[in-house]
Order: sequence, then structure tokens, then C-alpha cells
Amino acid sequence: MMLLDADIHQRWADDKAIVQYLPERYKDDGIVAPELLYRNPGGFLKQDEVSEGGGKPGSDTQKIVEDHLDKHDIDYGMFTGNSWFNLGALPNRDYANELARAYNEWLIDECLSVDERFLGSMYIAPKAPKKGAELIREYGSHPQIRQVMLPGGAEVPYGRPQYWPLYEAAEEMNLAIAIHPFSEGHGTSNPPTGAGHPNSYIEWHTLLGTYYMGQLTSMVTEGVFVEYPDLRLALIEGGYGWLPHFMWRLDKNWKGLRSQVPWLEKKPSHYIRKNVWFASQPIEEPEEPEQHNQILDMMHADEILIFASDYPHWDGDDPMWGLPPMEDEMERAVMYENAMELWDLPADPTDLN
Amino acid sequence: MMLLDADIHQRWADDKAIVQYLPERYKDDGIVAPELLYRNPGGFLKQDEVSEGGGKPGSDTQKIVEDHLDKHDIDYGMFTGNSWFNLGALPNRDYANELARAYNEWLIDECLSVDERFLGSMYIAPKAPKKGAELIREYGSHPQIRQVMLPGGAEVPYGRPQYWPLYEAAEEMNLAIAIHPFSEGHGTSNPPTGAGHPNSYIEWHTLLGTYYMGQLTSMVTEGVFVEYPDLRLALIEGGYGWLPHFMWRLDKNWKGLRSQVPWLEKKPSHYIRKNVWFASQPIEEPEEPEQHNQILDMMHADEILIFASDYPHWDGDDPMWGLPPMEDEMERAVMYENAMELWDLPADPTDLN
Repeated sequence: MMLLDADIHQRWADDKAIVQYLPERYKDDGIVAPELLYRNPGGFLKQDEVSEGGGKPGSDTQKIVEDHLDKHDIDYGMFTGNSWFNLGALPNRDYANELARAYNEWLIDECLSVDERFLGSMYIAPKAPKKGAELIREYGSHPQIRQVMLPGGAEVPYGRPQYWPLYEAAEEMNLAIAIHPFSEGHGTSNPPTGAGHPNSYIEWHTLLGTYYMGQLTSMVTEGVFVEYPDLRLALIEGGYGWLPHFMWRLDKNWKGLRSQVPWLEKKPSHYIRKNVWFASQPIEEPEEPEQHNQILDMMHADEILIFASDYPHWDGDDPMWGLPPMEDEMERAVMYENAMELWDLPADPTDLN
Repeated sequence: MMLLDADIHQRWADDKAIVQYLPERYKDDGIVAPELLYRNPGGFLKQDEVSEGGGKPGSDTQKIVEDHLDKHDIDYGMFTGNSWFNLGALPNRDYANELARAYNEWLIDECLSVDERFLGSMYIAPKAPKKGAELIREYGSHPQIRQVMLPGGAEVPYGRPQYWPLYEAAEEMNLAIAIHPFSEGHGTSNPPTGAGHPNSYIEWHTLLGTYYMGQLTSMVTEGVFVEYPDLRLALIEGGYGWLPHFMWRLDKNWKGLRSQVPWLEKKPSHYIRKNVWFASQPIEEPEEPEQHNQILDMMHADEILIFASDYPHWDGDDPMWGLPPMEDEMERAVMYENAMELWDLPADPTDLN
């Protein structure tokens, strides 16, 4: 059986790795990123993955090959980068766009080149969507780059038309769009929920799914997947246990309120099942194992759930033991078939180039 | 079998009904409420409940008795008032507090007096919690007033210590605290999710549950139910299909992050199952009826789900047909036993006085 991992966090050991690619006007600034205010008291990284030279876990790409890809016999591993980069929460969109470009250069030169099994999520600055579309057309033809990353928090929801140039470019370049927690509640982004700013990391982390509900509602109801029927969206690290209630609720509301969204030709869950994938980590752990299988059935996980380890983060899931037991057909779909479709991958990585 | 309805929206036919109770300094202002920006294109009210004189549905209390209580043989019906009142989204907390007082006077004089089966949710202004606590002690001894209403949207989450005087007073007066959608995204409240302001009512309405997730996370993790172990909280009109994933996720995070919330003596779901109740409307409708029963089991609905009609709103649930079929024991719990416990009610309304 093949195995794909949708969420591997590589990082640079030193800021110079990124700054070298910045234009002269920003080189003296270095990397300015919003401080991460919600902190895990135990740290975010698995301390058994510190590199031999003492580098932070994820900063030695060769170590990721050995300790993760080789160890678990992973066929493809998707790099998602550093959450604290927070490109959506920076006030200066030109600077954010240049940071994104520098990240993409580093990703290609120093990360993807290490092993052909690595895939890349290129960065763009969400507040500069037209420039982001240019970046997508510039970097998106690299054979290992298979998706474009957006942060979960934002100023305005991702269904709004100003973002559509990103979706047009991603569809054209055959790249997925991914959303990963980055900026929620930090920098220029909104409070994480309508309730306001949480007090602690346990609150912040518990509520990750709510940003995704907001973004997914916006993208589906505004008609992104009608305008771009081949666009593929991956929601990473937002959980999936909320999907049954969410799809039922959105479909029910569509029955009563479809006059507000006349462009939707089918019920909302149709677009979710056709155009959206959900990464498994962090798994919500039911009281009874059978309840997990019930949730998988309710959400049509055989079509839309993909395995993610979140390596090397504190709450990452081991490819062998992270997921509760599933039936064989479901397991094949979740562990590789669905992700192969999401990123349009050949069975053999050597066929990528 | 008894029947309790947790959400009946009565309203005044004319603003004068409220303004007469305002202090002189605000009488000329009348009722200033944030405009409801998210609108149902079909209206919010069932048009077959317009009163004989042409009054809006819910404005004729005697008609609620006949068309709802008598028709469905309801033993107790909880008045929740007018959502657009939006006391949490007003900038002037003194004015908001006086509006709350005026509402409470009207509620007692003109609504609860009509039928002893009616129960009342008194209002307070969330930005004036100390004055709100005074209102709770002033009006909370009325035998039909059984809970205190908070709006779902807020400036800061309801777990914060500034709100605790409200909880202290409610516990002392043996009243439940209720949250109902009011101000989310309107007036001075936050955007409804970390994604920003939705575009349309279908989005806004779909995301109602996310405010409740934010508020419930805050109240549980900040230790409200440790400090006030007898406090009872009702979450109305936020749905319940999200509870399984939510309790699993919060419990899982507590296992890894309990050092942040050392005051929690038990896992978070313990407090939810002991101190919190969830009103049924609007029901998320599963694809298969059996899935609804699975959700009920996962969320321990036999302890915490209560029936609500949301009369006379557009998407209200009929007491006979609103809920999918349940087993007898579950049905008794949901249709009356759980709400009797929430509001500490005698079996016979005449024993209330």
C-alpha cells in the first residue's frame, strides 16, 4: 500500500536562508513576522527531532528523509513550511509578497531538491492576490510544487472576488489551494471567533475548525467552485469531525435560502465532496472507536479525507498508529488514493519530472 | 408526556411598549438597535402567524397561547424575545442597561402575566455586567423568570472575569444563563468568524454554531463552572451536531495542555455534560435518519438536549414533526426532562408561584 503525508513542516535553520532571496529594499528588515501570541507551554515541536547540530526539528531536511519518509515508507510527503510566517497577518502586502517569493526560492533550492518524494506548497501573500497569481504562474510549473498555501485567518473571507485571480491561476497551473492555520488572531487578522480573542492556546487550538467553517462557507456560497470547477482545495489541520453537521446544515440552509446563491447549480455538499479534501491531523478522538467510523461514513471520508502527520509538531500523528482502525477500502482512500487525486500525482515520483 | 419549548419569540407591537419604561433621559431616543445587516430574503417570520389586526407574528401574546401552547399541548414555553434588540452590540452600556430594564418590565407586565405556562428570559447588557447583576437580583425572583439572556456575539468571550458577577448573581437566584444569536457581526461585535464578515444571510446563519464554540470554549476553559458549580447554561439556536467533535477535541487538547488550565478538576466535557444544555432548533438534518441517533448518542443528548420550536421564525420546528424519531427514553429526556432540570421547574405550573 502507498502512503502520502499531507503535512510536513520543514523550516530554515537560519533566517539568512530566506533573506538572501529578498530584494535589496527589504534585506535590512530581515523577516518581520507577527509574534505568535498563543503559545503551547510545552513548545510546538517534538524534541526528539532536534538535529545533530542542535537545530530545531524540521530544519534538517535530510533528517526528515531518514526519520520520517524512510522510516514510515512514505511515497510522497507534502511540505507546508513554517506556520509562524503569517503572511496573511502582515500589514505591508508588498513586503509579504516578497517574503513569499523568497520562501518559494528557498523551497525549490534547498528543500524539494533533497528528495524527489517531497512535494511543495508554494506561498503567496493573501492581501496581494494579483501578485500572488503571478507567483503561481512563475513557480507553479516546478514539477514538485503541487499546491498554493493560504493562512486560515484573514481580513476578509476567501470567497470574496478579490481572491479569485489566485484560484484562476491555481486551476490553470493544475495546483491545489491549501489552507493551514497561520495567522488566526495574530497580526492584522480578526479575532478567531465571533466571541472574541481567546485567552489561552488550548482555546485557540480547540477552535481551529471554526476558521475553516468560515472560509469554506464563504468559498462554497460565493460560487468559487462554480467559476473554477476544476479547482481543488485542501483544508489542513482544521480537523474533520465537524464536517457531518456542517454539510447537513449548509445543505438545509441552501434548501431554504437558495435564492441568495442562485449561481449554485447543486447543493453545497456537492461542491465540498467534489472539490475539497480534508487532512486528518489533529484527529478528534471519539469515546468509542466505532463512533470514528460513523463520522467517516457521515462525511464521505472515502472521497475527501487524506492522511497528515503534522511532523514534527507536538501533537503529530504517526502514520502507523495515528488513525483508528478503518476498513481496507477506506484506509486505501485515506492513506493515498484521495491525495493522489488532490495533487494529480503519478504512482512513481520519478514520473513527476 | 409533558412538553417544554425552549425558544418562543414574543415581541412588542409598538416601540412605546418598551419606551414607556425607559428613564426620562432616554425617552426621546426611543429604541436604538443596530440594523440587522444579514437578512433572510423571505423574512424571518412565519406569515401565517400574523395577528388579526395585522401585527407581526409573535406580537399578540394571546395568539401564542392559542396557536402554539394550546395547539401543541405545551406545558411550559420559554420566552426569548426579539433577536434584533442586540444589547451586546450597542456602544452605550448605560443605555443598553436601561433598555434591558425596560424589556424586563414589559416582559413581566405584558407577557408573563398572560399565561402561567410562559417562562421568561430576562435581559441584561453584557457590557455592563455589574449593573446586569443588579438587574438579575431585582427581577430574578419573579417566579416565571428562569433565565438570563446573553447574545451570541460579543466584544470579548464570556469566560472573561468581568462577566463573572452575572454568573454569581444567576447562580444565587437559581436562574439559568442562556445564549441566543443576537449581535454576531452587527454593531460593535466582532466579525462572526476568524475568516471575517460573511457576505450573505445563508453564510451568517450556517455559521451560528461557531460563536457558540467560541463562547463555550471560553467559559469552560476559564473555569466558570468550577467557580460556579451550580450555574446552568443553555445554548439556544446554535445547533448541536457539532458537539461530538467539539467535546472530543476539547478533551483531547486538555490531555495535552492541562497545564494551561490547572483549575479544571475534570476533563472539559464533564462540565459541558453537567452544566450546559443545548436547544434543538435548528436541527441539522442528516442524510440518513439513523445518523441522527448516532449523533445523539455521541453527544449524550439524553443529558443535555432540549426541544425548541423557535416559534414564530421562518425555520421553526413543529413540536410533533420537527425532530426525527427517537427512542422513548431519549424523547422524554429531550422533550421535557432535561429542560425541567435546566430551569428547576415543578411538574405543575401553578406550583411556580
